Amino acid sequence: MSSPLVTLLSDFGLQDEYVAVMKGVILEICPTARLLDISHLIAPQDVRSAAFVLYASHKYFPPGTIHLAVVDPGVGTDRRAVAIRTGTSFLVGPDNGLFSLLLKSQTDWEARRLENAQLRRTPVSSTFHGRDIFAPAAAHLARGVPFESLGRLCGLISPPWAEPVIGKEVIQGQVIHIDRFGNSVTNVAIEVLRQKAPVEKWVVRAGGWAVSMAKTYGEVGAGEALALAGSTGFIEIAVNQGSAASKLKLHPGSEVTFRLSHPAA
Amino acid sequence: MSSPLVTLLSDFGLQDEYVAVMKGVILEICPTARLLDISHLIAPQDVRSAAFVLYASHKYFPPGTIHLAVVDPGVGTDRRAVAIRTGTSFLVGPDNGLFSLLLKSQTDWEARRLENAQLRRTPVSSTFHGRDIFAPAAAHLARGVPFESLGRLCGLISPPWAEPVIGKEVIQGQVIHIDRFGNSVTNVAIEVLRQKAPVEKWVVRAGGWAVSMAKTYGEVGAGEALALAGSTGFIEIAVNQGSAASKLKLHPGSEVTFRLSHPAA
Amino acid sequence: MSSPLVTLLSDFGLQDEYVAVMKGVILEICPTARLLDISHLIAPQDVRSAAFVLYASHKYFPPGTIHLAVVDPGVGTDRRAVAIRTGTSFLVGPDNGLFSLLLKSQTDWEARRLENAQLRRTPVSSTFHGRDIFAPAAAHLARGVPFESLGRLCGLISPPWAEPVIGKEVIQGQVIHIDRFGNSVTNVAIEVLRQKAPVEKWVVRAGGWAVSMAKTYGEVGAGEALALAGSTGFIEIAVNQGSAASKLKLHPGSEVTFRLSHPAA
Repeated sequence: MSSPLVTLLSDFGLQDEYVAVMKGVILEICPTARLLDISHLIAPQDVRSAAFVLYASHKYFPPGTIHLAVVDPGVGTDRRAVAIRTGTSFLVGPDNGLFSLLLKSQTDWEARRLENAQLRRTPVSSTFHGRDIFAPAAAHLARGVPFESLGRLCGLISPPWAEPVIGKEVIQGQVIHIDRFGNSVTNVAIEVLRQKAPVEKWVVRAGGWAVSMAKTYGEVGAGEALALAGSTGFIEIAVNQGSAASKLKLHPGSEVTFRLSHPAA
Repeated sequence: MSSPLVTLLSDFGLQDEYVAVMKGVILEICPTARLLDISHLIAPQDVRSAAFVLYASHKYFPPGTIHLAVVDPGVGTDRRAVAIRTGTSFLVGPDNGLFSLLLKSQTDWEARRLENAQLRRTPVSSTFHGRDIFAPAAAHLARGVPFESLGRLCGLISPPWAEPVIGKEVIQGQVIHIDRFGNSVTNVAIEVLRQKAPVEKWVVRAGGWAVSMAKTYGEVGAGEALALAGSTGFIEIAVNQGSAASKLKLHPGSEVTFRLSHPAA
Repeated sequence: MSSPLVTLLSDFGLQDEYVAVMKGVILEICPTARLLDISHLIAPQDVRSAAFVLYASHKYFPPGTIHLAVVDPGVGTDRRAVAIRTGTSFLVGPDNGLFSLLLKSQTDWEARRLENAQLRRTPVSSTFHGRDIFAPAAAHLARGVPFESLGRLCGLISPPWAEPVIGKEVIQGQVIHIDRFGNSVTNVAIEVLRQKAPVEKWVVRAGGWAVSMAKTYGEVGAGEALALAGSTGFIEIAVNQGSAASKLKLHPGSEVTFRLSHPAA
């Protein structure tokens, strides 16, 4: 239990005091915690993008890691504050879909409400639950407080992960995250394509452009668009030596359609 | 004394080597120091904004924390380099107002000049006192060097914190910090308003707009402006689901006027 | 060997999962590693700028530090993956020039290919060697694996550092890095100028402007350009209270010419 690892993910940005305040709160409660930033530059209130970034990174951390995630458009409303124990880690944050993609790959998890007043800062503000509820809960878990003491067992009432719509010869997906380079990650996993037909049989349509499936950037010329499986297994729309988001005018939520060019059978 | 905590605050940005250089200097002197960034994205040379961010975060850190703050337009001039011992922490940086807001809430502190040549890097450059003077001082404090050995006791000669001008029915404040979301923090604390009249009696004028006091964002429609007490207790100008800085054209230093709509008595 | 220090430098940005994934990989292999970011905001694929930032910071870190650097336009091609042992530290990354400036000041170093399959993640992806090859190598070094076990000795085949062209009365250099403030660092060290003539004898031409050598910003008026030795010893083009990159339209690779105004002898 020495030096438990707590990761932090938020849309707070890096210019203000918000992230440092959460870290100070954690270290005051659990001085031995090791803090590690996943990202604080999630687009403001973009829960879906945050869910992707958490999913894409969580499996690389050691067992027992505590993931504190605060992208929380509903702060101050009655949305639930929860902690979740999976087989390998703890998740702490609002019940708004932040954990929906990650939990798809977990067969066994349980959630508890963060309702134990002794494990919060008081008074709880209406605008900064990261400081008053979530960071304290993560810190108490880090110092070894039993998961059960946080509050009652509960389900998650947030909407599930936005799955692609899968037809016979068409799969309708969407952009869920745009990275620094303009690569536009979709919610369509390469296995979903493979289950129906070899990858090269699919033609992708995004932002009004037709894009071919490829395995590496080098298969198209500089400045040309392609679709390929990213390091997470989800299909990304990319531009060789350029930005797909700029060139194809993609943004979070943009529709991406996969169609069989030569239908099997 | 194991693993003393040193926080860092600067306007150095995150793209260059400057922050890493200060961290390397600290770890060379005090290998057990724990380093924690408050922010390095303070607007260049904006001492007032840095003073606010330090104030807004410092009280969440454990006693004994050493705060290294380098927003230093006067580097290379004869402005003083100081360390300050408060009842709970150490502050290290230039004497230019960086610590003025924080020290308002401290009843007991003493400052010393950073003049001990043995606790500096030599030669001292004219452009990077963060590396040559401030980071070494913070690191020596972290490894347990007595505060008294840094140099002689001194006063602070930097201008005090810019207080609002308080009239009978009017309070004249200004924007001191703009956060990632465009929320514009003023130097007017909610208690200052409350001492004169209930909060809802005040009308706020900022950027040529009249803005009502509110308790939560939800009290106005999407895209509408409001004024409310932020998590620090200072009044912020905000826009529900938008940026007050953009919509009302606010910037650091913008005037914000609070006027009693129905004067008491 | 307790708490070995691993620094990270990349062009991955701070918004996505990439940096956190590398850190998780390191901590899974070496739980006691201490992680320290140099920068992740290197301009995408700007190897020369990354080489400068690594050079400018590496000498401030304690002996034994492991520097993990991933700016890797050639990922997926057959460019070499290497680790280098210098007299004071380890370097891990692609053999593409990232280490060329740093190694100029090292008299004794040896490089090895990262070819030991047991010290990689498998399968190795074609797009993210930071995760699959470089972070694991750095982590294994941090936990004490002998340098020799990484792979065979090799030379570096990347192009050497881009040196200025030195004529009798003219030195032809270029911009290698632009910092947060718009200061434009050149590849011309002040000693190169001094070896030929006193510094004030040189006139600098950059972006079509003639710029005088100075020792401090204050020697020119606000908004005026100057050239001075930066904290690394390389000449920087700067603007007092402004951005040289904006005013003089400088970018990485821009030519900067130094000419003797009154030729000696």
